[in-house]
Amino acid sequence: MLNLSHHLHVDTRGKGLYEITAPISQWVNKQEVRSGLLTVFIQHTSASLTIQENADPDVVHDLNQFFNRLAPEDERLYRHTVEGPDDMPAHIRAALTLTQLSIPVVHGRMALGTWQGVYVFEHRSRAHRRSVVLHLIGES
Amino acid sequence: MLNLSHHLHVDTRGKGLYEITAPISQWVNKQEVRSGLLTVFIQHTSASLTIQENADPDVVHDLNQFFNRLAPEDERLYRHTVEGPDDMPAHIRAALTLTQLSIPVVHGRMALGTWQGVYVFEHRSRAHRRSVVLHLIGES
Amino acid sequence: MLNLSHHLHVDTRGKGLYEITAPISQWVNKQEVRSGLLTVFIQHTSASLTIQENADPDVVHDLNQFFNRLAPEDERLYRHTVEGPDDMPAHIRAALTLTQLSIPVVHGRMALGTWQGVYVFEHRSRAHRRSVVLHLIGES
Repeated sequence: MLNLSHHLHVDTRGKGLYEITAPISQWVNKQEVRSGLLTVFIQHTSASLTIQENADPDVVHDLNQFFNRLAPEDERLYRHTVEGPDDMPAHIRAALTLTQLSIPVVHGRMALGTWQGVYVFEHRSRAHRRSVVLHLIGES
Repeated sequence: MLNLSHHLHVDTRGKGLYEITAPISQWVNKQEVRSGLLTVFIQHTSASLTIQENADPDVVHDLNQFFNRLAPEDERLYRHTVEGPDDMPAHIRAALTLTQLSIPVVHGRMALGTWQGVYVFEHRSRAHRRSVVLHLIGES
Repeated sequence: MLNLSHHLHVDTRGKGLYEITAPISQWVNKQEVRSGLLTVFIQHTSASLTIQENADPDVVHDLNQFFNRLAPEDERLYRHTVEGPDDMPAHIRAALTLTQLSIPVVHGRMALGTWQGVYVFEHRSRAHRRSVVLHLIGES
């Protein structure tokens, strides 16, 4: 049984979705695990993870806009305002999406559906370097 | 250590929740894993997973209605409209719920609470055949 | 390969977030797993899990208030009202957050980010004893 982990750094440039399917696949493919479980974990509370359609870029645009409406940058709504108007909405957006995702590995590949891509969902306005931990357990 | 996977197909008939606890349990029970981790992964971005109360059917009805109000079928809100008025709301509903669920297996059974059921949450209006991957790692 | 599970009981006193990072860490640290995957699973549908910032208490206050606005206690909105005005909103809040969380264990510790804390998110008004299952798989 193999049991491996890896750090991935993702540079973001403001609110929105950043696809990370390719670097994750590349790491998984190198590990020679034929069957197992891959876990993706983001070490932040103002950025998160999601799986979304990676065919039409309008999908990720609309998704980001939906969250802007749902958790608006309106300081009258929040007590936690010291880190800027986008910070508390960022925590809310993170709570509504995912901090962690696990994907079965079957026949040596992540068992993603045809249109599924893995994304870092950035919820802050400024650029950030985000830290993602990958963990893989399984057998060759 | 055992490391197994399985495909489940779930036929849906429009928006709403479809319980899949029984077929998952049946597969887990056949594997002779006494202790481990079961992962349920749905290979779609317009249907998702959730754990909800399986006692009163009004709960899943109200849950579906809540999401209809939260992400309405109003094309003025979205750019991505080419796949129909229910498609972008479906992606939003999927992002707000789960693509993957992991459940510990203890004493040979999924450690679900008394009222917990595992559901496929269909977000499209038409009937679909949905694909769910099960993965189980553990020992007998 | 080690494969372990444990039950944690969490006493809540009404809606809000209750940090459980310390008891989880204590259990993980005792298991002598250097590298692996920890899973946290809550056995309820009216309480859930989330990872949030544990530095400023206003963050968890604002998060709870956001969910009060999003899923209000208004019986005209729901069919499922027999368990009280806070019950259906509780199921909705649980569906929007997490029933399960998996965190990689690296160098013998959970790979949480600097500000990340693990919380039980109570969605009912009265006090409850909540049941959380921990599962750890990995190697020493």
